Amino acid sequence: MTYSKQFTRKLDQLNFKNLYQGDFFLTWEKTVDELIATFTVADALRALREDNASTKIFNSGLGISLFRDNSTRTRFSFASACNLLGLEVQDLDEGKSQIAHGETVRETANMISFMADVIGIRDDMYIGKGNTYMREVAKAVREGYLDGVLEQCPTLVNLQCDIDHPTQLMADMNHITHHFGGLENLKGKKVAMTWAYSPSYGKPLSVPQGAIGLMTRFGMEVVLTHPKGYEVMPEIEGIAQKQAAHSGGKFTKSSSMEEAFKDADMVYPKSWAPFAAMEKRTALYGNGDLEGIKALEQELLAENAKHKTWECTEQLMQTTRDGKALYLHCLPADISGVSCKEGEVAASVFDRYRVPLYKQASHKPYIIAAMIFLSKVKYPQQVLAELATGNKPRVFGT
Amino acid sequence: MTYSKQFTRKLDQLNFKNLYQGDFFLTWEKTVDELIATFTVADALRALREDNASTKIFNSGLGISLFRDNSTRTRFSFASACNLLGLEVQDLDEGKSQIAHGETVRETANMISFMADVIGIRDDMYIGKGNTYMREVAKAVREGYLDGVLEQCPTLVNLQCDIDHPTQLMADMNHITHHFGGLENLKGKKVAMTWAYSPSYGKPLSVPQGAIGLMTRFGMEVVLTHPKGYEVMPEIEGIAQKQAAHSGGKFTKSSSMEEAFKDADMVYPKSWAPFAAMEKRTALYGNGDLEGIKALEQELLAENAKHKTWECTEQLMQTTRDGKALYLHCLPADISGVSCKEGEVAASVFDRYRVPLYKQASHKPYIIAAMIFLSKVKYPQQVLAELATGNKPRVFGT
Amino acid sequence: MTYSKQFTRKLDQLNFKNLYQGDFFLTWEKTVDELIATFTVADALRALREDNASTKIFNSGLGISLFRDNSTRTRFSFASACNLLGLEVQDLDEGKSQIAHGETVRETANMISFMADVIGIRDDMYIGKGNTYMREVAKAVREGYLDGVLEQCPTLVNLQCDIDHPTQLMADMNHITHHFGGLENLKGKKVAMTWAYSPSYGKPLSVPQGAIGLMTRFGMEVVLTHPKGYEVMPEIEGIAQKQAAHSGGKFTKSSSMEEAFKDADMVYPKSWAPFAAMEKRTALYGNGDLEGIKALEQELLAENAKHKTWECTEQLMQTTRDGKALYLHCLPADISGVSCKEGEVAASVFDRYRVPLYKQASHKPYIIAAMIFLSKVKYPQQVLAELATGNKPRVFGT
Repeated sequence: MTYSKQFTRKLDQLNFKNLYQGDFFLTWEKTVDELIATFTVADALRALREDNASTKIFNSGLGISLFRDNSTRTRFSFASACNLLGLEVQDLDEGKSQIAHGETVRETANMISFMADVIGIRDDMYIGKGNTYMREVAKAVREGYLDGVLEQCPTLVNLQCDIDHPTQLMADMNHITHHFGGLENLKGKKVAMTWAYSPSYGKPLSVPQGAIGLMTRFGMEVVLTHPKGYEVMPEIEGIAQKQAAHSGGKFTKSSSMEEAFKDADMVYPKSWAPFAAMEKRTALYGNGDLEGIKALEQELLAENAKHKTWECTEQLMQTTRDGKALYLHCLPADISGVSCKEGEVAASVFDRYRVPLYKQASHKPYIIAAMIFLSKVKYPQQVLAELATGNKPRVFGT
Repeated sequence: MTYSKQFTRKLDQLNFKNLYQGDFFLTWEKTVDELIATFTVADALRALREDNASTKIFNSGLGISLFRDNSTRTRFSFASACNLLGLEVQDLDEGKSQIAHGETVRETANMISFMADVIGIRDDMYIGKGNTYMREVAKAVREGYLDGVLEQCPTLVNLQCDIDHPTQLMADMNHITHHFGGLENLKGKKVAMTWAYSPSYGKPLSVPQGAIGLMTRFGMEVVLTHPKGYEVMPEIEGIAQKQAAHSGGKFTKSSSMEEAFKDADMVYPKSWAPFAAMEKRTALYGNGDLEGIKALEQELLAENAKHKTWECTEQLMQTTRDGKALYLHCLPADISGVSCKEGEVAASVFDRYRVPLYKQASHKPYIIAAMIFLSKVKYPQQVLAELATGNKPRVFGT
Repeated sequence: MTYSKQFTRKLDQLNFKNLYQGDFFLTWEKTVDELIATFTVADALRALREDNASTKIFNSGLGISLFRDNSTRTRFSFASACNLLGLEVQDLDEGKSQIAHGETVRETANMISFMADVIGIRDDMYIGKGNTYMREVAKAVREGYLDGVLEQCPTLVNLQCDIDHPTQLMADMNHITHHFGGLENLKGKKVAMTWAYSPSYGKPLSVPQGAIGLMTRFGMEVVLTHPKGYEVMPEIEGIAQKQAAHSGGKFTKSSSMEEAFKDADMVYPKSWAPFAAMEKRTALYGNGDLEGIKALEQELLAENAKHKTWECTEQLMQTTRDGKALYLHCLPADISGVSCKEGEVAASVFDRYRVPLYKQASHKPYIIAAMIFLSKVKYPQQVLAELATGNKPRVFGT
């Protein structure tokens, strides 16, 4: 990709002024114009970087990351995005900090934010908690800003919560947009968001929910498929329904992987935990009921094991459009015979799509950077144009 | 705050040349002029940042942090200060490093400092150890510099030791200076530095010691109050006495919170451990006497529990000057009914002072930055003026 | 040191074009010209820094570090090198990341590299594993680059493996070059790379192997000495033999420390584990045979204890050239009576050489920076000249 005026011309046609000084919690809270502006800025930043142009809009400033779960990809994506824009990452490691000592969210949020321009949070473990926590943090720093405690208001970026995984799904969307040659080409395309078997349990619901919550915005035919009992949050199904109707697409449910894969243009087979079970687990954790948690885990693993046939096999891939549906995954995948005995996907399928999968992941740092950029920069078109002509190389002498 | 020539005019009237290439261990080792210069530069850097001006004086360089205790605030304050000036933070985590393998202080200090411009250390746990350790590190790197091992001599900043907590107290002082409209307005003001009950034990003495060691420099009436047995280091009381006499202020002791609060302009109620007990604990740790430590802990908790009435209540606050004394705390506070059953402060008092408390904390990153700035920059007035007119924004396009 | 045109004039006479876009695994894979170019750029960067000139060639970009063993020196050296050039370090902590969840090397390598310009790996624990792992990572990111997944190909720098420790030995070489007034003065000089007793066991072989693999390139007389049973990898001895013949030097073996020290110009006494035992240990770890590992450890410690006389004493130092051989160590050393009861070196010897030892270590950040610089910059002479005349200070106003 090379930078050109097409990027700013596209932005000129969109209304995204509300992204300025805003947070990014859930994709369905943003307008289609705002989402497209985010994709466009992500591509523009990538093009500038490929042209070896500096994209630093910050001379100093911190990007705070708070991960309440293990993370490689998202951690590095956030660090990459911050670095690309000139922010230095500071991890808030709850083990090291006095948060462990029972500080209130409000106080800590302010104490870490004196020089923070962005706060990225991943908190996907407990239903009803993650997104709520992020909003508390965002509210606290906004108050701190209004009260004159903070000189700037840090933007909150949802790096995965119990409800949505916007940086992942926005990256996925940008990937399929590039693959199919433009957002307009996605209209009418069928995507199968399907459950798949994994020997682990309790994987977050944020990917399937994020997928049906975003892909229904662009006129696609979205099919959600899972064994009985693996329902996602009903509210999100409702949102998907409404959005599909509005965008001229479709949102359907099916209980057969075969049906979902049939003539699909894209497939996204992935394990997740049942919503109701996650609600139960959250309550058990709340009560400190360790026996109950153990029992629930055994129950879930046993339930999972009944659905080992939910695997993305070569035979299933054959049934997709021309046998060539684009295979999607947020990675890491449970690959049968490779990372586990029986998993989400056959090794040969995964291997054939390895390069597209890595490219899918490569969009995430730029999506995060675009979210930050659009919340901080008042006249994005002008700033992009200045970066493009600034004659400031990213690497000197390369 | 907006940057103006007032900052450099003020600096012109002060003698602070010894801060250049110096370390910052204890406030009472600095002259009043040097302290005022530090406050002034802290405010100037803050004003520049509020004007969206770059304050980076380092193009590259490391800020090393070494925390021998959990920390959120001080960790982020140090990271913020370094970032504000252009230094990248590297944590020396003793778990990860070979320090755990018994390296000598001298060797490690040099090995981590080849590109270090500042070293910030927090070591407040054991009486007689923390400050001594910092001075060893500072001595080691100064020798390394003189021997040609290091090309620059890193500045040592005391981020809290067994004796003083200069970055905290300097931030506190700057807070009250702003609150009362100028340092000269503090003359004659009464501040109550009082012990308060906490269900935990063994909190550092560095805050009360730092408070009486700094506030007595500026003509204030400083009252130190605690139950019998909770004495601070006698040397510091002596220093406070001498300084108060010299500055036209007062330093008194009292064993009644009521007496201390009476007509006070500021109150700083906070738990700490008895000095003598901390000395005992240090010796027990030295001997590896775990049984002895456990016994001492129980003894201290039992002793603490006798003083639950030492709480900053609404009734007590009523007795202060016009019932409106400024409530101070280094945070986090033990808030009765919120973070613990019975604590240092009533919830309603804490809540009423939440915004001022957060503002109090907001000074710390700038104080640390000012300490670094003044130890590294030869002509501070000139550099501040150049930053102010440099036309280099902190955030581009905001 | 002050920057002068001598640096670029020297580079003009060398052929090192293959360093551009290359990795650094083993010194003996590089030509003598390439090694000298690396020393020269290291010195040039150091001179620029001493002149307070900015050496940042990166405006943004990440340096990824992956340490599979505790590390202070190498961690800080890598962080310093990255910072000096403008890269921000991101540690890939396998505890925190999903690597622990069984991801493949290939996938992780790409996932962390979207904005990585360099990857530094330390993996010296298991014979036959470390170097192999690094090459897998390097291959994975090169493929990712060629496949269009990555927009730049990160350089891999070996920060210590089971075979070589190139950043250490290159630093050591640069140290002795400076000490003896030039690389040409090393011709014919005798260096004793000898085993020494340590109460710990299992120290890596990479230093003695790296030493004989590098010092034999420059016409030196290299003597490798150790008790029977402490053999290094035979392939490396073969390489040393061949290189010594080619460079007009000598490579001999001896089983007597006395013989090795006799008339030596430099001595490098250091403990290491027997190659064969390390191979055995690697196999035991592979089989999860914890009992076997414990038994082997006891056996190795008992074997070590038979060789306590292998200590670098004052008497031995007396037998070196004029009693003044340069004492070398990669640090930390096991100092008799200081860091252990009986160790590698007498306290008085170590103490006399403390400053030279620290200077030896001081070369490492610059060596690492030079490796990165030469792999990223197409016309190094031109870029160095521009940095020298760029009028961009490292510290502003110092």
